[in-house]
Amino acid sequence: MRSLEFKGRDIVSIEDFSREEINYILNISKSMEQLASQGSNMLKGKILATLFFEPSTRTRLSFEAAMLKLGGAAIGFAEAEVTSVRKGENLADTIRAVENYADVIALRHPLDGAAKLAAEFSKVPILNAGSGSEEHPTQALMDLYTIQKEKGRIDGLKIALVGDLRYGRTVHSLAYALSLYNIELYLISPESLKMRKEVIHSVEKKISVFEGTNLEDVIPQVDVLYVTRIQKERFPDAAEYAKVKGTYKVDLKLLKNAKTDMIILHPLPRVDEISAEVDSAPQARYFQQVRNGLVVRMALLALVLGAVK
Amino acid sequence: MRSLEFKGRDIVSIEDFSREEINYILNISKSMEQLASQGSNMLKGKILATLFFEPSTRTRLSFEAAMLKLGGAAIGFAEAEVTSVRKGENLADTIRAVENYADVIALRHPLDGAAKLAAEFSKVPILNAGSGSEEHPTQALMDLYTIQKEKGRIDGLKIALVGDLRYGRTVHSLAYALSLYNIELYLISPESLKMRKEVIHSVEKKISVFEGTNLEDVIPQVDVLYVTRIQKERFPDAAEYAKVKGTYKVDLKLLKNAKTDMIILHPLPRVDEISAEVDSAPQARYFQQVRNGLVVRMALLALVLGAVK
Amino acid sequence: MRSLEFKGRDIVSIEDFSREEINYILNISKSMEQLASQGSNMLKGKILATLFFEPSTRTRLSFEAAMLKLGGAAIGFAEAEVTSVRKGENLADTIRAVENYADVIALRHPLDGAAKLAAEFSKVPILNAGSGSEEHPTQALMDLYTIQKEKGRIDGLKIALVGDLRYGRTVHSLAYALSLYNIELYLISPESLKMRKEVIHSVEKKISVFEGTNLEDVIPQVDVLYVTRIQKERFPDAAEYAKVKGTYKVDLKLLKNAKTDMIILHPLPRVDEISAEVDSAPQARYFQQVRNGLVVRMALLALVLGAVK
Repeated sequence: MRSLEFKGRDIVSIEDFSREEINYILNISKSMEQLASQGSNMLKGKILATLFFEPSTRTRLSFEAAMLKLGGAAIGFAEAEVTSVRKGENLADTIRAVENYADVIALRHPLDGAAKLAAEFSKVPILNAGSGSEEHPTQALMDLYTIQKEKGRIDGLKIALVGDLRYGRTVHSLAYALSLYNIELYLISPESLKMRKEVIHSVEKKISVFEGTNLEDVIPQVDVLYVTRIQKERFPDAAEYAKVKGTYKVDLKLLKNAKTDMIILHPLPRVDEISAEVDSAPQARYFQQVRNGLVVRMALLALVLGAVK
Repeated sequence: MRSLEFKGRDIVSIEDFSREEINYILNISKSMEQLASQGSNMLKGKILATLFFEPSTRTRLSFEAAMLKLGGAAIGFAEAEVTSVRKGENLADTIRAVENYADVIALRHPLDGAAKLAAEFSKVPILNAGSGSEEHPTQALMDLYTIQKEKGRIDGLKIALVGDLRYGRTVHSLAYALSLYNIELYLISPESLKMRKEVIHSVEKKISVFEGTNLEDVIPQVDVLYVTRIQKERFPDAAEYAKVKGTYKVDLKLLKNAKTDMIILHPLPRVDEISAEVDSAPQARYFQQVRNGLVVRMALLALVLGAVK
Repeated sequence: MRSLEFKGRDIVSIEDFSREEINYILNISKSMEQLASQGSNMLKGKILATLFFEPSTRTRLSFEAAMLKLGGAAIGFAEAEVTSVRKGENLADTIRAVENYADVIALRHPLDGAAKLAAEFSKVPILNAGSGSEEHPTQALMDLYTIQKEKGRIDGLKIALVGDLRYGRTVHSLAYALSLYNIELYLISPESLKMRKEVIHSVEKKISVFEGTNLEDVIPQVDVLYVTRIQKERFPDAAEYAKVKGTYKVDLKLLKNAKTDMIILHPLPRVDEISAEVDSAPQARYFQQVRNGLVVRMALLALVLGAVK
């Protein structure tokens, strides 16, 4: 595989990457497994700024741990209320200030397009750690990495995305990324939470897509079951949320009809869409997924800072 | 003294430790005094996660400073509102995510039993930094260390615990720990804030315990005066708090009847239970106690991570 | 230039420093430019505590980045609500605890005199990162450094401070500092936001001061235009704020009458007192100013910790 240039690049949207580039990132991620255990000085003297304008403890800690594992350091904030935003500052100004303190910025923001805007203004690479309901590219990369690692390949698999496919930001990035591979995609959601039309249109040009509302029907065929939380905070209307919450519940009963080598993924946090009894089932991989997020983020930090080729 | 194995152990409850083990920790703590001044690379490459589901700045900074002094790094959060808890995640899931990012976790949680639960799920050692109203083992260890350091011994001393003995979590851990030594324990509190029966029953099997409400009566005899704050936030009822606040006040007038080599401890923060005029009295040791907390936490981090034996 | 002793000193008020001392700090700052790019181990093993009792993301991140660039580490909090202050602790006790964890403390506090009080109690150096409406000495130093760097000198310049000169804390520190140089000072503000009398009295003993309300009149003459935000949060009364907000607006039309080598500074964050179109004007220097803040804070940390002479 030829070496690709990532130094100085922003990681804003998974759509910016070719299949070759994604495979390259996954390969570098694999080489980070050992460094995740042993530590490294690869990024000594480098500073990551985690600018989280909405809380996401898991993602923030993952980025910070990735930076520390590579010998770098981290500064940042965990919530917009603690920031200059209270004083009315715009995002572009925040970026043009923080780029003076940090060598790379991981940005989480409630508004669509925030990461793209930040990347336009920033002199240092922007890693999109979730912006609005659109994109969460590092989550998609860790999902791909987990599938590749656990199933040995991505091509040829039947992959089901289940739950909130409308508001959940991780599934949009993931659907786009999966469309670069030879897979069959099953989209299972309540009617009111179906994947947005523009995502489906883009994806079904490349791979075959099946939409449905019934999880039991598809469970016997799928190789990867990707479950998402129906997120109350994304609903404009509480009554709408009440109608669909708890629609899907992955439990041992459901798994009776699943392939034994199927794997269950979840971007976490979960609430009750995966029963606790499933945690010790052979198919459960959602906690391993977290570890994989660490090595993928180590890879991205090392790549955009030019420490690996 | 023989070497004891602490690598991989959780520090959940002071009751899990024998007198021999506690003495061992105190000895290792003593050996950390020099490293606290000079710094060390003992834990280079290791990461501590401070998961504080309720605020406790002093304890959090103490753990983080201890980790940094040993060459390690720290990530974490200072308050539950900023975390996935808002999204309804349970503690077990949080732990199973964070154990992928960190080599050791310091946990503060408002619920009784939280640290124990976390330890059951975690692959990395859990250090209980206070859970509910039950336990605060690292505080008890720093209290013992301070007594040992300042008085040269623990055995043979007369030790008074004063203030809120019911809700204050530090005094429960401390009473258990002291019961491993040959001491006389004085418990001085308002009637409504007496030490819980189960703690007294356990402790008085091993040492002699005197309960009372009047501090003046016992002050001439005691070697160690351990003062606690009557914590408004622990009271279910504001009227109950109003009745007892300000019951005890340690001032220079009170100290006239105290031994000159008595020492005064306090877990801090204090409000007005120790008068500012006492800060420069020869008996005051509550600020030195803070420094001792640092070395004790350095010792615990080094022990559970297997860096010292 | 002779070497001056800064080890162990507090940086509380710009008024504590002579012109010689300020020039010395500016020189050391210059020598930090290279280390800001390359990193350094100068403060390896040292810990900075950032105690921010009111939020100021930019200043906090600047201090932390400065410490990390020099190989040190940082702990701290970003907001009073997360701290022992909730439990009623006083500032002196907080300082006497934290001085056990850190080698230097950067303090931000809403009350006038807080940094001074902290310095009286602290065994480690206190860096005032803004206290009340009085003082913000590191901001003043970075302003001076920016003027010196961009104009090659401070003496002989015509410098205008514009906007809220009453509540804005940066301009008080800056006015005092500028009065040590041979400059002409223009103070442009709404009547209700004029610089406080005691500041003017002190400053005009040393340099010539012109007060006015009209920016257009003075713009053709000035070499440095220092714009401040009219800060809603500093006004006791919202109606008073409504009257004066938006009084001054620096835009390209205004700049037509300015010198081409005039420079525009702003302590940031800005809201709308400098139009976005000005960002690419040749006079804009407010983002470079941020970078200069980093090197000035690196210099101060290195100086008070005795790492440079």
